[in-house]
Amino acid sequence: MAYELYYWPGIQGRGEFVRLALEDAGAKYTDVARGKGGMNRMMAMMQGEKRPPFAPPFLKNGKLVIAQVANILFYLGPRLGLAPKDENARLWLNALQLTVTDFVKEVHDTHHPIATGLYYEDQKAEAKTYAEYFLKERVPKYLSYFDGVIAHSGGPYLMGRRISYTDLSLFQLVEGLRYAFPKAMAKAERKVPRVIEVRERVGEREGIKAYVASDRRIPFNEDGIFRHYPELDT
Amino acid sequence: MAYELYYWPGIQGRGEFVRLALEDAGAKYTDVARGKGGMNRMMAMMQGEKRPPFAPPFLKNGKLVIAQVANILFYLGPRLGLAPKDENARLWLNALQLTVTDFVKEVHDTHHPIATGLYYEDQKAEAKTYAEYFLKERVPKYLSYFDGVIAHSGGPYLMGRRISYTDLSLFQLVEGLRYAFPKAMAKAERKVPRVIEVRERVGEREGIKAYVASDRRIPFNEDGIFRHYPELDT
Repeated sequence: MAYELYYWPGIQGRGEFVRLALEDAGAKYTDVARGKGGMNRMMAMMQGEKRPPFAPPFLKNGKLVIAQVANILFYLGPRLGLAPKDENARLWLNALQLTVTDFVKEVHDTHHPIATGLYYEDQKAEAKTYAEYFLKERVPKYLSYFDGVIAHSGGPYLMGRRISYTDLSLFQLVEGLRYAFPKAMAKAERKVPRVIEVRERVGEREGIKAYVASDRRIPFNEDGIFRHYPELDT
Repeated sequence: MAYELYYWPGIQGRGEFVRLALEDAGAKYTDVARGKGGMNRMMAMMQGEKRPPFAPPFLKNGKLVIAQVANILFYLGPRLGLAPKDENARLWLNALQLTVTDFVKEVHDTHHPIATGLYYEDQKAEAKTYAEYFLKERVPKYLSYFDGVIAHSGGPYLMGRRISYTDLSLFQLVEGLRYAFPKAMAKAERKVPRVIEVRERVGEREGIKAYVASDRRIPFNEDGIFRHYPELDT
Protein backbone atom coordinates (compact mmCIF):
# COMPACT_ATOMS: atom_id res chain seq x y z
CA MET A 1 0.00 0.00 0.00
CA ALA A 2 1.22 3.50 -0.80
CA TYR A 3 1.98 6.01 1.94
CA GLU A 4 -0.13 9.13 1.95
CA LEU A 5 1.65 12.39 2.73
CA TYR A 6 -0.46 15.35 3.76
CA TYR A 7 1.11 18.77 3.44
CA TRP A 8 0.35 22.23 2.11
CA PRO A 9 0.60 22.21 -1.68
CA GLY A 10 2.75 24.93 -3.23
CA ILE A 11 5.65 24.90 -0.79
CA GLN A 12 8.47 22.56 0.16
CA GLY A 13 8.15 23.57 3.79
CA ARG A 14 8.44 21.00 6.53
CA GLY A 15 6.89 18.36 4.28
CA GLU A 16 10.06 18.33 2.19
CA PHE A 17 12.05 16.50 4.86
CA VAL A 18 9.58 13.63 4.57
CA ARG A 19 9.43 13.79 0.76
CA LEU A 20 13.20 13.47 0.51
CA ALA A 21 13.18 10.27 2.55
CA LEU A 22 10.34 8.74 0.53
CA GLU A 23 11.94 9.77 -2.78
CA ASP A 24 15.41 8.58 -1.86
CA ALA A 25 14.04 5.16 -0.96
CA GLY A 26 11.83 5.01 -4.04
CA ALA A 27 8.80 4.45 -1.81
CA LYS A 28 5.32 4.66 -3.24
CA TYR A 29 3.45 7.65 -1.91
CA THR A 30 0.74 10.12 -2.78
CA ASP A 31 1.21 13.80 -2.03
CA VAL A 32 -2.45 14.07 -1.20
CA ALA A 33 -3.08 17.80 -0.93
CA ARG A 34 -1.50 18.40 -4.35
CA GLY A 35 -4.15 16.22 -5.99
CA LYS A 36 -7.77 16.94 -6.77
CA GLY A 37 -9.86 17.38 -3.62
CA GLY A 38 -6.76 16.75 -1.55
CA MET A 39 -6.85 19.97 0.45
CA ASN A 40 -10.37 19.17 1.61
CA ARG A 41 -9.30 15.69 2.65
CA MET A 42 -6.36 17.12 4.59
CA MET A 43 -8.47 19.68 6.42
CA ALA A 44 -11.12 17.09 7.19
CA MET A 45 -8.54 14.80 8.76
CA MET A 46 -7.33 17.55 11.06
CA GLN A 47 -10.87 17.78 12.42
CA GLY A 48 -12.20 14.27 12.11
CA GLU A 49 -9.45 11.96 13.29
CA LYS A 50 -9.70 10.33 16.68
CA ARG A 51 -6.06 11.33 17.06
CA PRO A 52 -6.06 14.66 15.20
CA PRO A 53 -2.74 16.15 14.03
CA PHE A 54 -1.99 19.67 15.26
CA ALA A 55 -0.68 20.68 11.84
CA PRO A 56 0.63 19.29 8.54
CA PRO A 57 2.74 17.46 7.59
CA PHE A 58 1.31 14.13 8.59
CA LEU A 59 1.66 10.68 7.09
CA LYS A 60 -0.99 8.04 6.72
CA ASN A 61 -0.14 4.37 6.39
CA GLY A 62 -3.24 2.21 6.50
CA LYS A 63 -5.05 3.27 9.62
CA LEU A 64 -2.02 4.85 11.25
CA VAL A 65 -1.73 8.65 11.10
CA ILE A 66 1.55 10.20 12.28
CA ALA A 67 2.24 13.91 12.75
CA GLN A 68 5.45 15.90 13.33
CA VAL A 69 8.37 15.58 10.92
CA ALA A 70 10.86 13.98 13.32
CA ASN A 71 8.21 11.52 14.44
CA ILE A 72 7.31 10.59 10.85
CA LEU A 73 10.97 10.05 10.02
CA PHE A 74 11.51 8.04 13.20
CA TYR A 75 8.75 5.74 11.98
CA LEU A 76 9.82 5.64 8.33
CA GLY A 77 13.57 5.44 8.89
CA PRO A 78 14.04 1.70 9.46
CA ARG A 79 11.24 0.88 7.00
CA LEU A 80 12.98 2.82 4.21
CA GLY A 81 16.48 1.61 5.05
CA LEU A 82 17.42 5.11 6.21
CA ALA A 83 17.94 4.37 9.90
CA PRO A 84 19.56 1.71 12.01
CA LYS A 85 17.30 -0.75 13.82
CA ASP A 86 19.21 -0.67 17.11
CA GLU A 87 17.28 1.37 19.72
CA ASN A 88 20.20 3.41 21.03
CA ALA A 89 21.29 4.40 17.55
CA ARG A 90 17.72 5.34 16.65
CA LEU A 91 17.49 7.60 19.71
CA TRP A 92 20.74 9.30 18.76
CA LEU A 93 19.49 9.85 15.22
CA ASN A 94 16.22 11.20 16.60
CA ALA A 95 18.12 13.71 18.76
CA LEU A 96 19.92 14.90 15.62
CA GLN A 97 16.67 15.18 13.69
CA LEU A 98 15.10 17.17 16.54
CA THR A 99 18.05 19.54 16.34
CA VAL A 100 17.21 19.96 12.64
CA THR A 101 13.63 20.74 13.73
CA ASP A 102 14.89 23.45 16.09
CA PHE A 103 17.07 24.93 13.37
CA VAL A 104 14.20 24.93 10.85
CA LYS A 105 11.99 26.85 13.28
CA GLU A 106 14.71 29.50 13.62
CA VAL A 107 15.01 29.68 9.82
CA HIS A 108 11.25 30.27 9.65
CA ASP A 109 11.50 33.02 12.22
CA THR A 110 14.01 35.00 10.12
CA HIS A 111 11.03 36.27 8.14
CA HIS A 112 8.40 35.85 10.87
CA PRO A 113 10.02 36.81 14.18
CA ILE A 114 6.91 38.43 15.66
CA ALA A 115 3.88 36.47 14.53
CA THR A 116 3.10 33.75 12.00
CA GLY A 117 -0.30 35.39 11.56
CA LEU A 118 1.22 38.63 10.24
CA TYR A 119 2.79 39.24 6.83
CA TYR A 120 6.53 39.57 6.42
CA GLU A 121 5.91 43.15 5.34
CA ASP A 122 4.46 43.88 8.78
CA GLN A 123 7.58 42.66 10.62
CA LYS A 124 10.39 43.61 8.25
CA ALA A 125 12.37 45.70 10.72
CA GLU A 126 12.30 42.96 13.35
CA ALA A 127 13.15 40.37 10.71
CA LYS A 128 16.26 42.31 9.76
CA THR A 129 17.58 42.34 13.32
CA TYR A 130 16.61 38.70 13.80
CA ALA A 131 18.33 37.59 10.58
CA GLU A 132 21.50 39.45 11.50
CA TYR A 133 21.90 37.46 14.74
CA PHE A 134 20.71 34.30 13.07
CA LEU A 135 23.40 34.49 10.39
CA LYS A 136 26.13 35.62 12.76
CA GLU A 137 25.47 33.23 15.64
CA ARG A 138 22.94 30.52 14.95
CA VAL A 139 23.92 29.31 11.48
CA PRO A 140 27.57 28.77 12.47
CA LYS A 141 26.51 27.15 15.76
CA TYR A 142 24.16 24.61 14.16
CA LEU A 143 26.27 23.87 11.10
CA SER A 144 29.48 23.44 13.07
CA TYR A 145 27.62 21.16 15.48
CA PHE A 146 26.60 18.88 12.60
CA ASP A 147 30.09 19.13 11.12
CA GLY A 148 31.50 18.01 14.48
CA VAL A 149 29.06 15.10 14.65
CA ILE A 150 30.26 13.88 11.25
CA ALA A 151 33.87 14.22 12.40
CA HIS A 152 33.15 12.22 15.58
CA SER A 153 31.36 9.47 13.62
CA GLY A 154 34.31 9.02 11.27
CA GLY A 155 32.13 10.19 8.37
CA PRO A 156 31.24 10.62 5.66
CA TYR A 157 27.72 10.73 7.14
CA LEU A 158 26.25 11.80 10.49
CA MET A 159 26.07 8.20 11.68
CA GLY A 160 29.33 7.13 10.07
CA ARG A 161 29.53 5.00 6.98
CA ARG A 162 25.81 4.50 6.48
CA ILE A 163 23.49 7.23 5.30
CA SER A 164 20.43 8.15 7.39
CA TYR A 165 17.33 10.26 6.92
CA THR A 166 18.96 13.11 8.84
CA ASP A 167 21.66 13.31 6.16
CA LEU A 168 18.86 13.96 3.67
CA SER A 169 17.59 16.71 5.98
CA LEU A 170 21.07 18.20 6.10
CA PHE A 171 21.05 18.31 2.29
CA GLN A 172 17.78 20.24 2.45
CA LEU A 173 19.16 22.65 5.07
CA VAL A 174 22.14 23.48 2.87
CA GLU A 175 19.99 23.86 -0.24
CA GLY A 176 17.53 26.07 1.60
CA LEU A 177 20.17 28.27 3.23
CA ARG A 178 21.90 28.68 -0.14
CA TYR A 179 18.60 29.81 -1.65
CA ALA A 180 17.63 32.15 1.17
CA PHE A 181 20.99 33.62 2.13
CA PRO A 182 23.40 33.08 -0.79
CA LYS A 183 25.94 35.65 0.38
CA ALA A 184 26.05 34.65 4.03
CA MET A 185 25.98 30.97 3.17
CA ALA A 186 28.92 31.23 0.76
CA LYS A 187 31.00 32.32 3.75
CA ALA A 188 29.47 29.95 6.29
CA GLU A 189 30.04 26.89 4.09
CA ARG A 190 33.80 27.22 4.14
CA LYS A 191 33.94 26.26 7.79
CA VAL A 192 31.82 23.11 7.54
CA PRO A 193 33.35 20.97 4.78
CA ARG A 194 31.88 17.74 6.16
CA VAL A 195 28.35 19.12 6.03
CA ILE A 196 28.95 20.21 2.45
CA GLU A 197 30.27 16.77 1.57
CA VAL A 198 27.06 15.23 2.89
CA ARG A 199 25.15 17.67 0.68
CA GLU A 200 27.23 16.59 -2.35
CA ARG A 201 26.82 12.90 -1.68
CA VAL A 202 23.08 13.18 -1.11
CA GLY A 203 22.68 15.30 -4.25
CA GLU A 204 24.29 12.55 -6.31
CA ARG A 205 22.02 9.78 -5.12
CA GLU A 206 19.83 8.35 -7.83
CA GLY A 207 16.50 8.90 -6.10
CA ILE A 208 17.31 12.42 -5.00
CA LYS A 209 18.76 13.42 -8.38
CA ALA A 210 15.66 12.21 -10.21
CA TYR A 211 13.37 13.86 -7.67
CA VAL A 212 15.10 17.26 -7.73
CA ALA A 213 14.92 17.25 -11.54
CA SER A 214 11.23 16.34 -11.55
CA ASP A 215 8.19 18.56 -11.19
CA ARG A 216 7.42 16.81 -7.93
CA ARG A 217 10.10 19.04 -6.41
CA ILE A 218 8.35 22.36 -5.81
CA PRO A 219 10.81 25.23 -6.40
CA PHE A 220 11.85 27.28 -3.38
CA ASN A 221 9.61 30.32 -3.12
CA GLU A 222 8.63 33.16 -0.83
CA ASP A 223 5.72 31.29 0.76
CA GLY A 224 7.94 28.58 2.19
CA ILE A 225 10.35 28.33 5.11
CA PHE A 226 13.49 29.26 3.18
CA ARG A 227 12.72 32.63 1.59
CA HIS A 228 15.07 34.80 -0.38
CA TYR A 229 14.70 38.38 0.78
CA PRO A 230 17.96 40.05 -0.28
CA GLU A 231 17.65 42.64 2.51
CA LEU A 232 18.05 39.88 5.11
CA ASP A 233 21.17 38.36 3.54
CA THR A 234 23.92 40.36 5.17
CA MET B 1 21.51 2.29 38.60
CA ALA B 2 20.33 5.89 38.96
CA TYR B 3 19.58 8.02 35.93
CA GLU B 4 21.73 11.13 35.54
CA LEU B 5 19.96 14.26 34.36
CA TYR B 6 22.08 17.06 32.98
CA TYR B 7 20.54 20.49 32.87
CA TRP B 8 21.31 24.11 33.79
CA PRO B 9 21.07 24.55 37.55
CA GLY B 10 18.94 27.45 38.75
CA ILE B 11 16.04 27.15 36.32
CA GLN B 12 13.20 24.72 35.67
CA GLY B 13 13.52 25.28 31.94
CA ARG B 14 13.23 22.39 29.53
CA GLY B 15 14.76 20.03 32.09
CA GLU B 16 11.59 20.29 34.17
CA PHE B 17 9.59 18.16 31.74
CA VAL B 18 12.04 15.33 32.39
CA ARG B 19 12.19 15.95 36.15
CA LEU B 20 8.41 15.70 36.43
CA ALA B 21 8.41 12.26 34.81
CA LEU B 22 11.25 10.98 37.00
CA GLU B 23 9.65 12.41 40.15
CA ASP B 24 6.17 11.14 39.37
CA ALA B 25 7.53 7.64 38.90
CA GLY B 26 9.74 7.85 41.97
CA ALA B 27 12.76 6.99 39.83
CA LYS B 28 16.24 7.35 41.24
CA TYR B 29 18.13 10.14 39.55
CA THR B 30 20.86 12.68 40.11
CA ASP B 31 20.41 16.25 38.92
CA VAL B 32 24.07 16.38 38.06
CA ALA B 33 24.73 20.06 37.35
CA ARG B 34 23.16 21.08 40.67
CA GLY B 35 25.77 19.11 42.55
CA LYS B 36 29.42 19.88 43.24
CA GLY B 37 31.50 19.94 40.06
CA GLY B 38 28.38 19.08 38.08
CA MET B 39 28.51 22.01 35.70
CA ASN B 40 32.01 21.05 34.65
CA ARG B 41 30.94 17.48 34.04
CA MET B 42 28.00 18.68 31.96
CA MET B 43 30.11 20.98 29.81
CA ALA B 44 32.76 18.29 29.37
CA MET B 45 30.15 15.84 28.10
CA MET B 46 28.97 18.29 25.46
CA GLN B 47 32.51 18.33 24.09
CA GLY B 48 33.80 14.88 24.80
CA GLU B 49 31.03 12.44 23.93
CA LYS B 50 31.28 10.42 20.75
CA ARG B 51 27.66 11.39 20.26
CA PRO B 52 27.67 14.92 21.70
CA PRO B 53 24.37 16.58 22.70
CA PHE B 54 23.66 19.92 21.04
CA ALA B 55 22.34 21.37 24.32
CA PRO B 56 21.02 20.39 27.76
CA PRO B 57 18.90 18.70 28.93
CA PHE B 58 20.31 15.27 28.34
CA LEU B 59 19.94 12.03 30.24
CA LYS B 60 22.57 9.44 30.94
CA ASN B 61 21.69 5.86 31.72
CA GLY B 62 24.77 3.66 31.87
CA LYS B 63 26.60 4.33 28.62
CA LEU B 64 23.57 5.71 26.83
CA VAL B 65 23.30 9.50 26.51
CA ILE B 66 20.03 10.92 25.15
CA ALA B 67 19.37 14.54 24.25
CA GLN B 68 16.19 16.48 23.42
CA VAL B 69 13.26 16.48 25.85
CA ALA B 70 10.76 14.63 23.67
CA ASN B 71 13.39 12.02 22.86
CA ILE B 72 14.29 11.53 26.52
CA LEU B 73 10.63 11.11 27.41
CA PHE B 74 10.07 8.75 24.50
CA TYR B 75 12.81 6.58 26.00
CA LEU B 76 11.74 6.93 29.63
CA GLY B 77 7.99 6.70 29.09
CA PRO B 78 7.48 2.93 28.98
CA ARG B 79 10.28 2.39 31.54
CA LEU B 80 8.55 4.66 34.06
CA GLY B 81 5.05 3.40 33.37
CA LEU B 82 4.14 6.72 31.80
CA ALA B 83 3.62 5.56 28.22
CA PRO B 84 1.96 2.65 26.46
CA LYS B 85 4.21 -0.02 24.94
CA ASP B 86 2.29 -0.32 21.68
CA GLU B 87 4.24 1.36 18.84
CA ASN B 88 1.33 3.26 17.29
CA ALA B 89 0.26 4.68 20.64
CA ARG B 90 3.84 5.70 21.41
CA LEU B 91 4.09 7.55 18.10
CA TRP B 92 0.86 9.37 18.83
CA LEU B 93 2.12 10.34 22.28
CA ASN B 94 5.38 11.50 20.75
CA ALA B 95 3.50 13.73 18.29
CA LEU B 96 1.71 15.31 21.27
CA GLN B 97 4.97 15.81 23.14
CA LEU B 98 6.55 17.42 20.08
CA THR B 99 3.62 19.81 19.98
CA VAL B 100 4.46 20.68 23.60
CA THR B 101 8.04 21.30 22.42
CA ASP B 102 6.80 23.70 19.75
CA PHE B 103 4.64 25.52 22.27
CA VAL B 104 7.51 25.81 24.78
CA LYS B 105 9.72 27.41 22.12
CA GLU B 106 7.02 30.01 21.47
CA VAL B 107 6.72 30.65 25.21
CA HIS B 108 10.48 31.24 25.32
CA ASP B 109 10.24 33.66 22.42
CA THR B 110 7.75 35.89 24.26
CA HIS B 111 10.73 37.37 26.08
CA HIS B 112 13.36 36.61 23.43
CA PRO B 113 11.75 37.16 20.03
CA ILE B 114 14.86 38.57 18.36
CA ALA B 115 17.89 36.75 19.73
CA THR B 116 18.66 34.34 22.55
CA GLY B 117 22.06 36.01 22.79
CA LEU B 118 20.57 39.39 23.72
CA TYR B 119 19.01 40.42 27.04
CA TYR B 120 15.26 40.83 27.40
CA GLU B 121 15.90 44.52 28.03
CA ASP B 122 17.34 44.81 24.52
CA GLN B 123 14.23 43.40 22.85
CA LYS B 124 11.43 44.65 25.08
CA ALA B 125 9.45 46.44 22.38
CA GLU B 126 9.51 43.40 20.10
CA ALA B 127 8.65 41.15 23.03
CA LYS B 128 5.55 43.20 23.74
CA THR B 129 4.23 42.81 20.20
CA TYR B 130 5.18 39.13 20.15
CA ALA B 131 3.46 38.44 23.49
CA GLU B 132 0.29 40.20 22.35
CA TYR B 133 -0.11 37.84 19.39
CA PHE B 134 1.04 34.89 21.41
CA LEU B 135 -1.65 35.42 24.06
CA LYS B 136 -4.35 36.27 21.55
CA GLU B 137 -3.72 33.55 18.99
CA ARG B 138 -1.20 30.93 20.01
CA VAL B 139 -2.19 30.16 23.62
CA PRO B 140 -5.85 29.52 22.69
CA LYS B 141 -4.78 27.51 19.64
CA TYR B 142 -2.47 25.17 21.52
CA LEU B 143 -4.59 24.81 24.65
CA SER B 144 -7.80 24.18 22.75
CA TYR B 145 -5.96 21.61 20.65
CA PHE B 146 -4.96 19.69 23.77
CA ASP B 147 -8.44 20.13 25.20
CA GLY B 148 -9.85 18.63 22.02
CA VAL B 149 -7.44 15.70 22.19
CA ILE B 150 -8.64 14.91 25.71
CA ALA B 151 -12.25 15.15 24.53
CA HIS B 152 -11.54 12.75 21.63
CA SER B 153 -9.77 10.27 23.90
CA GLY B 154 -12.73 10.13 26.27
CA GLY B 155 -10.55 11.61 29.03
CA PRO B 156 -9.63 12.35 31.66
CA TYR B 157 -6.11 12.26 30.17
CA LEU B 158 -4.64 12.91 26.72
CA MET B 159 -4.49 9.19 25.98
CA GLY B 160 -7.78 8.36 27.71
CA ARG B 161 -7.97 6.60 31.04
CA ARG B 162 -4.25 6.16 31.59
CA ILE B 163 -1.92 8.99 32.42
CA SER B 164 1.15 9.62 30.26
CA TYR B 165 4.26 11.75 30.47
CA THR B 166 2.66 14.36 28.22
CA ASP B 167 -0.05 14.91 30.85
CA LEU B 168 2.75 15.84 33.23
CA SER B 169 4.05 18.27 30.61
CA LEU B 170 0.57 19.76 30.30
CA PHE B 171 0.60 20.34 34.08
CA GLN B 172 3.88 22.22 33.67
CA LEU B 173 2.52 24.30 30.79
CA VAL B 174 -0.45 25.41 32.87
CA GLU B 175 1.71 26.15 35.91
CA GLY B 176 4.17 28.10 33.80
CA LEU B 177 1.55 30.11 31.93
CA ARG B 178 -0.18 30.94 35.21
CA TYR B 179 3.12 32.21 36.59
CA ALA B 180 4.12 34.20 33.50
CA PHE B 181 0.76 35.56 32.37
CA PRO B 182 -1.66 35.39 35.32
CA LYS B 183 -4.18 37.82 33.85
CA ALA B 184 -4.29 36.40 30.36
CA MET B 185 -4.24 32.84 31.64
CA ALA B 186 -7.20 33.41 34.00
CA LYS B 187 -9.25 34.14 30.89
CA ALA B 188 -7.75 31.46 28.67
CA GLU B 189 -8.33 28.70 31.23
CA ARG B 190 -12.08 29.05 31.13
CA LYS B 191 -12.23 27.65 27.64
CA VAL B 192 -10.13 24.55 28.28
CA PRO B 193 -11.68 22.76 31.26
CA ARG B 194 -10.23 19.38 30.30
CA VAL B 195 -6.69 20.74 30.27
CA ILE B 196 -7.30 22.26 33.69
CA GLU B 197 -8.65 18.96 34.96
CA VAL B 198 -5.44 17.25 33.85
CA ARG B 199 -3.52 19.93 35.75
CA GLU B 200 -5.59 19.24 38.88
CA ARG B 201 -5.21 15.49 38.67
CA VAL B 202 -1.47 15.68 38.07
CA GLY B 203 -1.05 18.16 40.93
CA GLU B 204 -2.68 15.69 43.30
CA ARG B 205 -0.43 12.78 42.46
CA GLU B 206 1.75 11.67 45.32
CA GLY B 207 5.09 11.97 43.55
CA ILE B 208 4.29 15.35 42.03
CA LYS B 209 2.86 16.76 45.25
CA ALA B 210 5.95 15.76 47.22
CA TYR B 211 8.24 17.08 44.51
CA VAL B 212 6.54 20.46 44.14
CA ALA B 213 6.72 20.93 47.93
CA SER B 214 10.41 20.00 48.06
CA ASP B 215 13.46 22.14 47.42
CA ARG B 216 14.22 19.97 44.40
CA ARG B 217 11.55 22.04 42.62
CA ILE B 218 13.33 25.25 41.62
CA PRO B 219 10.89 28.17 41.84
CA PHE B 220 9.86 29.86 38.60
CA ASN B 221 12.12 32.84 37.97
CA GLU B 222 13.13 35.37 35.35
CA ASP B 223 16.02 33.30 34.00
CA GLY B 224 13.79 30.44 32.91
CA ILE B 225 11.38 29.87 30.06
CA PHE B 226 8.25 31.04 31.86
CA ARG B 227 9.03 34.57 33.04
CA HIS B 228 6.70 36.99 34.72
CA TYR B 229 7.09 40.39 33.13
CA PRO B 230 3.84 42.22 33.99
CA GLU B 231 4.16 44.44 30.91
CA LEU B 232 3.75 41.38 28.66
CA ASP B 233 0.62 40.09 30.38
CA THR B 234 -2.12 41.90 28.52
